[in-house]
Amino acid sequence: MKFGGTSVADADKIRAAAKRAVRTQKQGHQVVMVVSAMGKTTDHLEDLASQVMRSKPAPKREWDQLMVTGEQVTISLVAMALEEMGSPAISFTAGQIAMVTDDRHTKARIKTIAAEKIHKELDSGKIAIIAGFQGVTEEGHMTTLGRGGSNVTLVAIAAALNADMCENYTDVDGVFTADPRVVPTGRKINKISYDEMLELASLGVNVLHNRAVEFAKKYNVPIHVRNAAHNRKGTMIVAATESMEKIVVSGAALKEKLARVSLTKLPDHPGVVADVFHTIAQHDIMVDDIIQTIGDDKTASLSFTVELAEFADAKIVCEKIAKKLKCHVSYDDSLSKVSVVGVGMRVHTGVAKKMFSALAKAKINIENITTSEIKISCMIDRAEGKKALRLVHDAFELGGKKKKTAKKKAKKTAKKK
Amino acid sequence: MKFGGTSVADADKIRAAAKRAVRTQKQGHQVVMVVSAMGKTTDHLEDLASQVMRSKPAPKREWDQLMVTGEQVTISLVAMALEEMGSPAISFTAGQIAMVTDDRHTKARIKTIAAEKIHKELDSGKIAIIAGFQGVTEEGHMTTLGRGGSNVTLVAIAAALNADMCENYTDVDGVFTADPRVVPTGRKINKISYDEMLELASLGVNVLHNRAVEFAKKYNVPIHVRNAAHNRKGTMIVAATESMEKIVVSGAALKEKLARVSLTKLPDHPGVVADVFHTIAQHDIMVDDIIQTIGDDKTASLSFTVELAEFADAKIVCEKIAKKLKCHVSYDDSLSKVSVVGVGMRVHTGVAKKMFSALAKAKINIENITTSEIKISCMIDRAEGKKALRLVHDAFELGGKKKKTAKKKAKKTAKKK
Repeated sequence: MKFGGTSVADADKIRAAAKRAVRTQKQGHQVVMVVSAMGKTTDHLEDLASQVMRSKPAPKREWDQLMVTGEQVTISLVAMALEEMGSPAISFTAGQIAMVTDDRHTKARIKTIAAEKIHKELDSGKIAIIAGFQGVTEEGHMTTLGRGGSNVTLVAIAAALNADMCENYTDVDGVFTADPRVVPTGRKINKISYDEMLELASLGVNVLHNRAVEFAKKYNVPIHVRNAAHNRKGTMIVAATESMEKIVVSGAALKEKLARVSLTKLPDHPGVVADVFHTIAQHDIMVDDIIQTIGDDKTASLSFTVELAEFADAKIVCEKIAKKLKCHVSYDDSLSKVSVVGVGMRVHTGVAKKMFSALAKAKINIENITTSEIKISCMIDRAEGKKALRLVHDAFELGGKKKKTAKKKAKKTAKKK
Repeated sequence: MKFGGTSVADADKIRAAAKRAVRTQKQGHQVVMVVSAMGKTTDHLEDLASQVMRSKPAPKREWDQLMVTGEQVTISLVAMALEEMGSPAISFTAGQIAMVTDDRHTKARIKTIAAEKIHKELDSGKIAIIAGFQGVTEEGHMTTLGRGGSNVTLVAIAAALNADMCENYTDVDGVFTADPRVVPTGRKINKISYDEMLELASLGVNVLHNRAVEFAKKYNVPIHVRNAAHNRKGTMIVAATESMEKIVVSGAALKEKLARVSLTKLPDHPGVVADVFHTIAQHDIMVDDIIQTIGDDKTASLSFTVELAEFADAKIVCEKIAKKLKCHVSYDDSLSKVSVVGVGMRVHTGVAKKMFSALAKAKINIENITTSEIKISCMIDRAEGKKALRLVHDAFELGGKKKKTAKKKAKKTAKKK
């Protein structure tokens, strides 16, 4: 069971998390809890570091040494809360269960876990509480696992223990067919495949980070994403099954703040494209989608999108590239991307057509299209983004079948009468 | 160099501590810093724990797991401050230098230190920053060293590294002949022996905890107690030398809040006294002084003092003892203890006489006397405590010779005229 920062933000929430673990244990399970730093702890630590490091970035080893204290505070408090309830417990830092990573500070990768140390405590009837987000190198240096790190810890521990189930407690009810803040008919998805979740995560659905899902897929660990505030079921993330493929589209997503860079009249010889992306990667700019188009003469064209936050940096780099390669560069920083995702697409046809016509009917112009086996994305004008998401969500009846809804409403009205 | 909590309380103080270390290194020394938790951090952690543990004391292992995070935050921030100044640095938790202790959580004792890990970093030109107060068991559990723990770390590290010198940076100028808040003529002592410091510490002089001094004595590590706020020399704590013995009395101290318990008409057979103190120890009551007196008939008498904070508990236990042994018990909870300390006492006579007559002249009644080879203590009424300390301090001319002072004053007055 993993509890994020908001689910262990104070003593009351820590007690609530502990109670949930005890309840699960009483149902006959062995329970491991993975916890994040409490609420604003990480911000506080970052603030302390920035007060000391003014002129340059903090040395990464020391940054990690500082950051891991946040989770260490939580694990001991959770263990205390369990003991207070009369439930034997033991907390573990990454070092204490030899969760060994490589030495890439601030974004380390897990190599091995001493699962037998955890098993031993579980077998003696204890609940084990493990610090998320952290690792330790073979030499004993502290590391952190980067964004979404606590979820990576959750899945890695589950895989190492050969657990039946991962429960990821958060402050939302699960994964939705579309963000309910934008699409009021957005429904919670009961079951979704790893691949769909990976697509959704890369499309900006923030429930679970890609690295955790990749890990879960690799070791086939089912993840139950659910709300720490109540007991209702959330979304199960599992391997794709045949029955899943009957559902053509599982969800829709909108990535709002995108910009496109287009390089035209590129010299058309081998290695040019590789050169361009090598330079971009060197400047740590994350590319969203790449759209290569064929030039009409002896020149090539190349477009790619970046998140708006990276646009300023990307512009500087691309001006340099254009100068060096003597090509032309243009920008569009008012784009959004609307996408549909579903493993069912693999076997069903007509998904693209349905999506394009829904957008066409509303006179929304499609700037670019990118696809994968289980995803179709359309780049559109940002002003039309939210509307497009609602249209697409509707076209695939992701909020439920229209007629049924109408019938239900009629029934309700009848009852009221 | 050890910096206590007030000397690393914020970013500015951390920078100041780092600067001091760099300066010392530039003078050609290898520098290790031992640091405590920042200012109120420990209070904050204790508060968190008490919010979770309401009905019983926190499990000690988890308490230690929580507490050690305080020092870990400081070490990484100090390392960052050094890097910011362009000075290579590396921070170490107890685990990272294998500072192995026994498993007595909250009051562990150091067994071994992997000094070679520290030497390696020092030899490469780095300043090493080590978390005070903490240790790790052979099994990898976190431990803490109890009261004064960071000073124990300082001395243990110095001993392990065979260091030339320990510097203990604090918020006072050093050890004084008497507390200057009570005795305005109290002077800073330039040099004091381990034994004298041990006596003073047990008499309530809070500069350095006994365990640290014992350790320093055992490994003959000189400690320089000095103020982090300026560069003036403080007090050197060293092995006793012959020249020291010329100074008969080095300092005076007042322990204000004491209570005395007297058991009279005790059955006079072997083992009774041992029985009494066994029972008292079982209830974790710290006895200050023991004063056994001889009864006139076939019964024995026994008095001992405790700090006022322990008096309520002591009373309950002693009522039980009196009931069981059918003896009489009486109390006095308005006592203080004034003492003089000095290695010179060993070879000089007349110290007791001088002290008693100073008190007698002021009509201060002496309730009890306890002595060691280098200490004389008088139990007196608390109302007279501060006055007694000033009288004794004066009688041994600890503030400087009277005549000289008078001459100096005269000179000054002359100059002004």
